[in-house]
Amino acid sequence: MEMTPISTEFCPPTAVVIISGGLDSSTLAYHLQAGGSRLMLLSFDYGQRHRRELDAAAIVAAGLVARHHIVDVQSVGALLAGSAITDSYVEVPDGHYTDETMKITVVPNRNALMLDVAIAVAVVEQADAVAFGAHAGDHTIYPDCRPEFIDALQVCAWVGNDGFLADGFRILAPFLTWSKAEIVRRGAELGVPFGDTWSCYKGGAVHCGRCGTCTERREAFALAGVPDPTVYAAG
Amino acid sequence: MEMTPISTEFCPPTAVVIISGGLDSSTLAYHLQAGGSRLMLLSFDYGQRHRRELDAAAIVAAGLVARHHIVDVQSVGALLAGSAITDSYVEVPDGHYTDETMKITVVPNRNALMLDVAIAVAVVEQADAVAFGAHAGDHTIYPDCRPEFIDALQVCAWVGNDGFLADGFRILAPFLTWSKAEIVRRGAELGVPFGDTWSCYKGGAVHCGRCGTCTERREAFALAGVPDPTVYAAG
Repeated sequence: MEMTPISTEFCPPTAVVIISGGLDSSTLAYHLQAGGSRLMLLSFDYGQRHRRELDAAAIVAAGLVARHHIVDVQSVGALLAGSAITDSYVEVPDGHYTDETMKITVVPNRNALMLDVAIAVAVVEQADAVAFGAHAGDHTIYPDCRPEFIDALQVCAWVGNDGFLADGFRILAPFLTWSKAEIVRRGAELGVPFGDTWSCYKGGAVHCGRCGTCTERREAFALAGVPDPTVYAAG
Repeated sequence: MEMTPISTEFCPPTAVVIISGGLDSSTLAYHLQAGGSRLMLLSFDYGQRHRRELDAAAIVAAGLVARHHIVDVQSVGALLAGSAITDSYVEVPDGHYTDETMKITVVPNRNALMLDVAIAVAVVEQADAVAFGAHAGDHTIYPDCRPEFIDALQVCAWVGNDGFLADGFRILAPFLTWSKAEIVRRGAELGVPFGDTWSCYKGGAVHCGRCGTCTERREAFALAGVPDPTVYAAG
């Protein structure tokens, strides 16, 4: 598999990184740090049922040289109840991540919200970039993981914070064209503690092994040829 | 003074309105309701020192036919401490609203954040619009009150929620070209309870009468020729 090399473009001197506790964003933080970026990490508590991912984010963050803040936006999550990710009454569908049924896992405007908090922090910190872990497999289901969304938000950030952002500020999604398998390969190179990361949307004691994100996670390790340290409830 | 007439363009069937408790957003809610819009009102607790405005928002909302939610984003405000609006250690400057010193009252990316929550709610409610009370006097100091910001955020909302927003969804700032005096005149026509609204950034028991927002408020009533029911500490 061809790996995208670390480019200086993707490793700004300082970056605010959104880290969910999943393997994409965890690898992103390791990737940027390896490229020389000084990081500030943000996670978001929006009342997700898979709250284990916040613990995972804290554990992964502890292995990096970075401040980590968990931002409490549960009040927002409560307003938006109705997504399978935030509402305990809505069943998380099993099946493949790219299936139509996974649309129920869309939290409206989620990336705009998280990125706009990160952009505000970037103003305060005068950070050179905000980065998040969207990858090629996210595009179909989640419109706020598509390149055109990132371009639009970039303009919005520049215009809405005119004179207040660091010169050359950018929104980065270095894995936007990468498959999840490529991310796993890169994470393996960097020694990302995959066993500490969390993907499952069902939020049990161990990964369920059946929901869209579990299916995608298993596939990525298999395709990457990297041993999967994850414990799955369903074999 | 020439008043902008209510146009159907500005009064969509349903709208999510950001109401701060100040006189601009309070008048906006009355204005849209008078034009036939069904409203849902959102206020934001970001740890502002002038917390009186949240009480004001609740009082004004109670006089409208609308649900009202106060969204707790204090965790975000804490991350952004350093603005005179959120940080008790930073002094709110006296003087005119358009002065350079008022730049210290900029909360980074604030409108993007609040509008993002409103957009997410609009997805859930399938509302036709999100509206906020930016007016002509805000443009100089606050980049996120300028027309080009609203245009950029509109694109961002459409692209980032492709397939999930109501058809024809729009972000509205009906007062964007209005002076504050025009807003006061319109509010007087609509019977807005100005005495219940709150502007002062200093957050005392009564309006201080000296800070930028108080100065602007007093001027607006005087220019509009509308009696000002506000009690000011400084005459």
